[in-house]
Amino acid sequence: MHLLRNIGCLATCRPDGAQGEIHEVRNAALVWDDGTIRWAGPEDELPFDRRSCHAFDAGGSLVVPGLVDCHTHLAFAGWRADEFIQRIEGHGYLEIAESGGGILSTVRATRAATGEELLDRCLSFARRMIALGVTTVECKSGYGLTLADELKLLRVYRQLDRSGPLRIVSTFLGAHVVPPEYEADRGGYLRSLTTEMLPAVRREDLATFCDVFVEESAFTLDEARALLETARALGFGLKIHADQLTDGGGARLAADVGAVSAEHLEHVSDAGIDAMAQAGVVAVSLPLAAMYLNQDPLPARRLIDAGVPVAVATDFNPGTAPSFHLPFAMTLACVRQRMTPAEALKGATIIAARAVGMDDRIGSLERGKVADFALIDAADVGAWLYHLRPNACRATVIDGVPRWSDLPAG
Amino acid sequence: MHLLRNIGCLATCRPDGAQGEIHEVRNAALVWDDGTIRWAGPEDELPFDRRSCHAFDAGGSLVVPGLVDCHTHLAFAGWRADEFIQRIEGHGYLEIAESGGGILSTVRATRAATGEELLDRCLSFARRMIALGVTTVECKSGYGLTLADELKLLRVYRQLDRSGPLRIVSTFLGAHVVPPEYEADRGGYLRSLTTEMLPAVRREDLATFCDVFVEESAFTLDEARALLETARALGFGLKIHADQLTDGGGARLAADVGAVSAEHLEHVSDAGIDAMAQAGVVAVSLPLAAMYLNQDPLPARRLIDAGVPVAVATDFNPGTAPSFHLPFAMTLACVRQRMTPAEALKGATIIAARAVGMDDRIGSLERGKVADFALIDAADVGAWLYHLRPNACRATVIDGVPRWSDLPAG
Repeated sequence: MHLLRNIGCLATCRPDGAQGEIHEVRNAALVWDDGTIRWAGPEDELPFDRRSCHAFDAGGSLVVPGLVDCHTHLAFAGWRADEFIQRIEGHGYLEIAESGGGILSTVRATRAATGEELLDRCLSFARRMIALGVTTVECKSGYGLTLADELKLLRVYRQLDRSGPLRIVSTFLGAHVVPPEYEADRGGYLRSLTTEMLPAVRREDLATFCDVFVEESAFTLDEARALLETARALGFGLKIHADQLTDGGGARLAADVGAVSAEHLEHVSDAGIDAMAQAGVVAVSLPLAAMYLNQDPLPARRLIDAGVPVAVATDFNPGTAPSFHLPFAMTLACVRQRMTPAEALKGATIIAARAVGMDDRIGSLERGKVADFALIDAADVGAWLYHLRPNACRATVIDGVPRWSDLPAG
Repeated sequence: MHLLRNIGCLATCRPDGAQGEIHEVRNAALVWDDGTIRWAGPEDELPFDRRSCHAFDAGGSLVVPGLVDCHTHLAFAGWRADEFIQRIEGHGYLEIAESGGGILSTVRATRAATGEELLDRCLSFARRMIALGVTTVECKSGYGLTLADELKLLRVYRQLDRSGPLRIVSTFLGAHVVPPEYEADRGGYLRSLTTEMLPAVRREDLATFCDVFVEESAFTLDEARALLETARALGFGLKIHADQLTDGGGARLAADVGAVSAEHLEHVSDAGIDAMAQAGVVAVSLPLAAMYLNQDPLPARRLIDAGVPVAVATDFNPGTAPSFHLPFAMTLACVRQRMTPAEALKGATIIAARAVGMDDRIGSLERGKVADFALIDAADVGAWLYHLRPNACRATVIDGVPRWSDLPAG
């Protein structure tokens, strides 16, 4: 039995209550065993004999559930710093995409990379994410866009899940854009997605979710609906990249097809918000992408007020969100999306866990849940997210095992 | 003699040319001795016998001049996370100030702190700034607002300069706000500033610059002009906090009185920009403050196009910019102010050096200048500022001496 004591503030992030209700306990302790939380509460109510525990001192830290980055494109080759400069010079996202840049530029580089190369890079990112307090990462394919290359990416994620200390949730995003070889035959690519790729991904059980990018430069609502219905029939959970650059009706489609989440939503309509609220779809906000594209962020306050839970994720990718710094995305969510620090924390823990279908196991510090948590050098979540530092995380525990620490030994 | 070789890209940041011209040298080397740069150029043109040098391998890093954070309020006690949450909830800066929060809240905490406590905290911040590649920091007083407390702050900065490895430039900002004890007697506080505090600061030679906050909640244009003219007569260089929350004419005043810099400028007028350009005043942009206040940033493109050099600094303070992460401020300057990465780098090196009156000694990597530089894990400045990481700095050298490194030994 393991005991973490002298926790200045334990933000349990239990799912009940409003998004801003993180159920904090001051002067707390946490007990776990075999990777599972046995008890969490005020230290002076500890029901265990401390002498029977292997005890650690949190030094007054804030302790939060392991952060869940519920939207990344982790496996990619190359970078796209050139487009960062092009955007500063006034070139738009769609203009860059139409001139051969954007997603297709990363597709070319990623197809040319081996699985080993991609895995090495993912492992390097994963180690640095763990040091920030991240314990679970959703990873999308979508830079392959052929059967072989999409399987290559998803197998990288499976290897990462098995070999790395991070928890990985995989999403098939073959419907990221139409690849150039199908430019004159969209129907052919959609048939390849539904009759070839989705069944192959299913056979190897390589992905939990199927995602589709609904946008002028990517897939229409009708194409997305057909694809998602096929995916649902095959047993995939559903996600949608919706309303990022224009209001394309993606939010309503997410509600219609029973998607677990709709992501981006910078241009979501009021009707889309209402539909999501009724259907219980999670909104995944991606403040780094909005920052890098110099966009207004999604209307988080309207979503939360309408009863839609708002997750916060990085969208880590080499084009529009080249940063895996989830705590920084949370600070941006506070400043730009007007979410309180507590709302941002719940958005990156229990609500993000719901967006990846794992809120029964992770995302909050409660008896019976997995012992994934992070020690933060701050008095509380407000003090943490307000004082933006390179890294405020002191230690990260995954499955009950310390995976990163800069605490003094002892 | 010391040699740094295998530099993938050396951004010399020589002052000549446009703000975006950083005079990069690929496959470069740098030679220094006694803390002074002796040579910088392509490695294959090295005019020295390498065997006579103590050689270091940069491993293909980007090497940039040591970053100059030319606007901070480094010495303060307490934090103000509560105001961060109040602003998210819709309360304005002036509203918070009027209810006893804001600067005056930090003044209360700072007056209660000892010089030793403040110095310890400054040293802790300074160490973490060095790890980000920062080698020079401008530090303002202004949280004391009594003769004794302002001297306490400036003496902390002098001790920091002497004991710490960072280069410190001190600025007297007694005219930050009118302290509560003078609320009914603004004239009395202004007299205290001009007849008591400024001469005392001068006698101990505790500050290079005198700064004043020109704003509705702080000082009027006429008050600022009178104060700055007294400061100039005493030999201080001049700076102005101008046009942050409203267009208060601070930019034109900076030009009129011959200030070296005008800072903030989120609401600067076209007439203000023209006056700054004619007078050669540096604009100091503070993108973190604009982010934390959820403001539009200063019009950097208009300033640069008008011929005004634009520095980039953190404004590190416990209220409106609680972050000392200068590279992150540079990324924000790119994304929000539409400065290119090269412009942001020159803004945080040679132009920032000019804003603290030290561009003859620091801010660029040229023969005869001080050997202050940073090794960055990136191919070039675009790749660096685009891929926002907790910290991309591999090593920092100040006065020719390595002060921080996470490079493998050897």
